[in-house]
Amino acid sequence: MPLPTLTTPTIDDIHAAAARIAAVAVRTPLMESPYLNDAVGGRLLIKAEPLQRTGSFKFRGAYNTISQLPENIQKNGVVAFSSGNHAQGVAAAAQLHDIPAVIVMPEDAPALKVANTRGYGAEVVLYDRYSQDREVIGAAIADERGLSLIKPYDDPRIIAGQGTLGLEIVEQIDTPPAQVLGPCGGGGLISGTAIAIKDSFPDANVYAVEPEEFDDTARSLREGVRQEIDPHASSICDSLMPPTPGELTFAVNRKLLAGGLVVSDAQVREAMRQAFLRLKLVVEPGGAVALAAALTGAVTCRNRTTVVVCSGGNVDSTTFAEILNAS
Amino acid sequence: MPLPTLTTPTIDDIHAAAARIAAVAVRTPLMESPYLNDAVGGRLLIKAEPLQRTGSFKFRGAYNTISQLPENIQKNGVVAFSSGNHAQGVAAAAQLHDIPAVIVMPEDAPALKVANTRGYGAEVVLYDRYSQDREVIGAAIADERGLSLIKPYDDPRIIAGQGTLGLEIVEQIDTPPAQVLGPCGGGGLISGTAIAIKDSFPDANVYAVEPEEFDDTARSLREGVRQEIDPHASSICDSLMPPTPGELTFAVNRKLLAGGLVVSDAQVREAMRQAFLRLKLVVEPGGAVALAAALTGAVTCRNRTTVVVCSGGNVDSTTFAEILNAS
Repeated sequence: MPLPTLTTPTIDDIHAAAARIAAVAVRTPLMESPYLNDAVGGRLLIKAEPLQRTGSFKFRGAYNTISQLPENIQKNGVVAFSSGNHAQGVAAAAQLHDIPAVIVMPEDAPALKVANTRGYGAEVVLYDRYSQDREVIGAAIADERGLSLIKPYDDPRIIAGQGTLGLEIVEQIDTPPAQVLGPCGGGGLISGTAIAIKDSFPDANVYAVEPEEFDDTARSLREGVRQEIDPHASSICDSLMPPTPGELTFAVNRKLLAGGLVVSDAQVREAMRQAFLRLKLVVEPGGAVALAAALTGAVTCRNRTTVVVCSGGNVDSTTFAEILNAS
Repeated sequence: MPLPTLTTPTIDDIHAAAARIAAVAVRTPLMESPYLNDAVGGRLLIKAEPLQRTGSFKFRGAYNTISQLPENIQKNGVVAFSSGNHAQGVAAAAQLHDIPAVIVMPEDAPALKVANTRGYGAEVVLYDRYSQDREVIGAAIADERGLSLIKPYDDPRIIAGQGTLGLEIVEQIDTPPAQVLGPCGGGGLISGTAIAIKDSFPDANVYAVEPEEFDDTARSLREGVRQEIDPHASSICDSLMPPTPGELTFAVNRKLLAGGLVVSDAQVREAMRQAFLRLKLVVEPGGAVALAAALTGAVTCRNRTTVVVCSGGNVDSTTFAEILNAS
């Protein structure tokens, strides 16, 4: 299995990724709501990534990575560990390549994400988030069965794939944005997006947005070195729970980001309700953190254009109903 | 107030409407879900009109109509009667033209629709759906205040405006569809869509889909003359409750449609859940009837390409939560 070159991807890598995924990925719309504009006193442009294939941006990076595996290695299949969205992205990308996929998921992942991953034809292996190390399990399965490990974020091919979302924003927007806000777990999405945004709009401020208790990137950006989260931290944002920023993603983010923003679970719930009411979009908790930051003024959006990435919509119906009812 | 010419609009009228609304309306995406394709054994392409400005297709026709009023008449303002989506469409279009709007709405319209209509700056006048005639009320207010009445469907400018949705389907689709399914209340959307679809794809079958008890168009198409619904009929599809097909819309539909399909409230609820799960799209009951027809096999979708119009997403959060929880 070839080791990925651990160099940060360039804008050319993102263009190449865009060409690779063009026939299979959705070019998701950049939406605007007069109501939300009024609410912040500025212009909000929402990248509606729940409409992506598999319901989140993760398909972009997964497909870009799998399609670059050498044929004789690719055919053996792939393995991934993920709380859900990367799982679905890898499973769907593997299915499109007609190769086997094994997905290692935490036992407490949303039922919908587990069911969907199996629905894409993958074999699901469950583990205990608190007592077992998913990286160790993933590596063992990869070795044993000769599978290629598809990392969730710390791989230049993943970062370039997620960066296609930023490239689409550049192509879809009609004015240079003052700032771009995106959800941040391991940092693959925001680092790839930052590369694309800063290439065309060097003056735009790009922010990583995280849930309270999972603010490892915000703290790492302040300290200059990677920080870890409390292993017993909790949040409704199940898709943004990696223990520490990626090595490669943090190298990019440290150079390109304006900073990290943090939102509470309550602010995330309200952002999900606003997306339902104003955008008619189903956004999962982790996918709504950037919208929450914009709506609560974690960074001011007044009299300027702000791009907000809503990164996914894979939320159980019971959870979504509960959040709607709490309004 | 000039009377609209009661002739059916042509494809040229739809092209002209598309040019009028281009700068203010959303070109909504045509979505596809591998899961839904598998479910029907064919290809479903979903026109995602909940993502339209005001959350439904009604903005298209309202804006197209108001923008054609002579300036000296337009400036006095407009009046409309509507259960909700036409109300929001007219209110938003009036606001963009910077003219007053009075909206006559039933007392039992969803709270969200009433609130949104007021949010677009319109004055809302409530009436009792069972004891008062909204056409009489609307006409009286129009006369009294010198306002132009913007009809919900029986006007060639409205039909041409709604037809821009069909024109977009023609431009977005990569293969001639076997059939196109769209919700039908008064018939404005499906008649305009049929004109656009049949112009490019004369062999495509276009179907009007209605809720049980509000199947006036299905029955009218069978009988050859306009039928009425039972005045005490009820349905969760609040946006599809006109008492009888429009005169002009029925003249178009009688000529162009392949027939009418009927779905139950239970089928509509399940279609809303599937749109939530598979498309990450909020679809209101009346907006989901065509998807319900496709998913339940009211017309077969096996081994063919079916376009399904999801026409709006203005549903209260309590109603939506209740429908999700009933799964």
